[in-house]
Amino acid sequence: MRLVTYQNRARTDAARLGVWLGERVVDVARLAASAGQTLPDSMLGLIDAGPDALALLGRLCDPYADQWPPGTSTWRDNVHLLAPIPQPRKNIFGIGLNYREHVAESSRSLDTAAQLPSQPVVFSKPPTSVIGPGDGIEHNAQLTQQLDWEVELAVVIGRQAKGIAESQAMDYVFGYTVINDISARDNRRAGQWIFSKGQDTYCPMGPCLVTADEIKDPHNLALTLKKNGELKQASNTRHMLFRIPALIADIASAITLEPGDIIATGTPSGVGAGRTPQEWMVPGDIIEAWVEGIGLLRNPVVNSQ
Amino acid sequence: MRLVTYQNRARTDAARLGVWLGERVVDVARLAASAGQTLPDSMLGLIDAGPDALALLGRLCDPYADQWPPGTSTWRDNVHLLAPIPQPRKNIFGIGLNYREHVAESSRSLDTAAQLPSQPVVFSKPPTSVIGPGDGIEHNAQLTQQLDWEVELAVVIGRQAKGIAESQAMDYVFGYTVINDISARDNRRAGQWIFSKGQDTYCPMGPCLVTADEIKDPHNLALTLKKNGELKQASNTRHMLFRIPALIADIASAITLEPGDIIATGTPSGVGAGRTPQEWMVPGDIIEAWVEGIGLLRNPVVNSQ
Repeated sequence: MRLVTYQNRARTDAARLGVWLGERVVDVARLAASAGQTLPDSMLGLIDAGPDALALLGRLCDPYADQWPPGTSTWRDNVHLLAPIPQPRKNIFGIGLNYREHVAESSRSLDTAAQLPSQPVVFSKPPTSVIGPGDGIEHNAQLTQQLDWEVELAVVIGRQAKGIAESQAMDYVFGYTVINDISARDNRRAGQWIFSKGQDTYCPMGPCLVTADEIKDPHNLALTLKKNGELKQASNTRHMLFRIPALIADIASAITLEPGDIIATGTPSGVGAGRTPQEWMVPGDIIEAWVEGIGLLRNPVVNSQ
Repeated sequence: MRLVTYQNRARTDAARLGVWLGERVVDVARLAASAGQTLPDSMLGLIDAGPDALALLGRLCDPYADQWPPGTSTWRDNVHLLAPIPQPRKNIFGIGLNYREHVAESSRSLDTAAQLPSQPVVFSKPPTSVIGPGDGIEHNAQLTQQLDWEVELAVVIGRQAKGIAESQAMDYVFGYTVINDISARDNRRAGQWIFSKGQDTYCPMGPCLVTADEIKDPHNLALTLKKNGELKQASNTRHMLFRIPALIADIASAITLEPGDIIATGTPSGVGAGRTPQEWMVPGDIIEAWVEGIGLLRNPVVNSQ
């Protein structure tokens, strides 16, 4: 299922939870109500409600093709999509240096080591950094001259996980989305990345959350990033150094993962810092991050001064 | 005002918000109700409610000395204190290397630079790391042999802040508490600290939140840490390299600070890693972090294997 958080196009109504089916967005809570059932009206609510709620939603969608009960659906073009989880409950976990060639380009251009990490390199991005499809990535020239992109597959956790085996870790995945892990390369501080990666608007997310059952193999998804239509990153999630079960089990060995937690799994090579000459994002640029099976996340870069 | 989040001693009731006055804890929502008024029953609720709510609470407390309306107060010894903010809305901001002698000891014993940082070194600790007074700091020997302490003054933000001047920054402070920034020194990864500082139970917080009006000068508070009664850290917040207004303005230059956000302002020298020989916490240890004007935060170290 392709789940979205959406508003009316004028953005005057509260955000709601929808299923994106073809050219329609079907409102989850209203669809349930039309059948005399109850389902949550937010993504975190649906994740919290557990697998029974998701199964009920599947059954409710099943009998309809394009004929949805009156008042439960609208055209995709009539709505504004937000980040699937617009306000995560804690900072998003990011994984640094998780693709071999990105480790190499980083060690040439940034201050990281050339050898492959022996354990996942975890950092975080605050909830206040999250923006949705179409929202502006803020370029503040007073703070940075090195604003960079990083397309990533992001994993959304479905239920509480602590001290779990790698072999069970995929049972804790609710679904997947796309994150563009924006980084101000000149804002790192004594090696810490949160100030460089955690600024407002530095976490574009979307366009939808695809439930785990729809992604047959999350370790075989093409992912690309284009700047103004030009291909900058092109790889496949099969090249991750630490795969999703290893990332989940590793974090959950020490930190309780909760429903709705998000892990951005790292970016492949082709970031601006690693190019010759280096290349940065500036106001007016259009950035398109895409992951196979999930979709295209398109954001303009805007001047925030 | 000294605010606490508390439960009944058996911990069977939901957490509530109280004012700690002498030997009594007065329930904020119940006190308000007894006067035909309404006040929130949680710390984040009170912070969100703004200065008028805090002023009302002050007025409601004022006429009573020890004669509280029936059902609104109980003995301090009869309740269990939790962390003042048991579930922060985002990761807690931590500041590394913010006391001169701690910069020196860290450069000798860890992998940080000897020169003073030119900008605040920001990192984060997830909400899942928060524990309250008396709760066990988990020692997992499978993960660490270098569990360390760090007493810190923590600042609680009162209202949304973005792009504010240092000269205005103190207006955004709701109050102060004590945090023990527990660190597994051998769990740093490619320079990132979240895995070493963000594990479950690694953020003891409390015993109370003291509102800003009660702390005349937050840059002149003694702070100490004792392990099994032995003094390990003893300094004063006047030795901070970046003071509270600078920390708030710096973070808020790029990251929106929200009501209830917490900034742990860094630790002075005397951590276990910096001692000769090095010293670590092990199960059975009792750790007491104290900040003048706020109180004593006491936690045992427990075996979590």
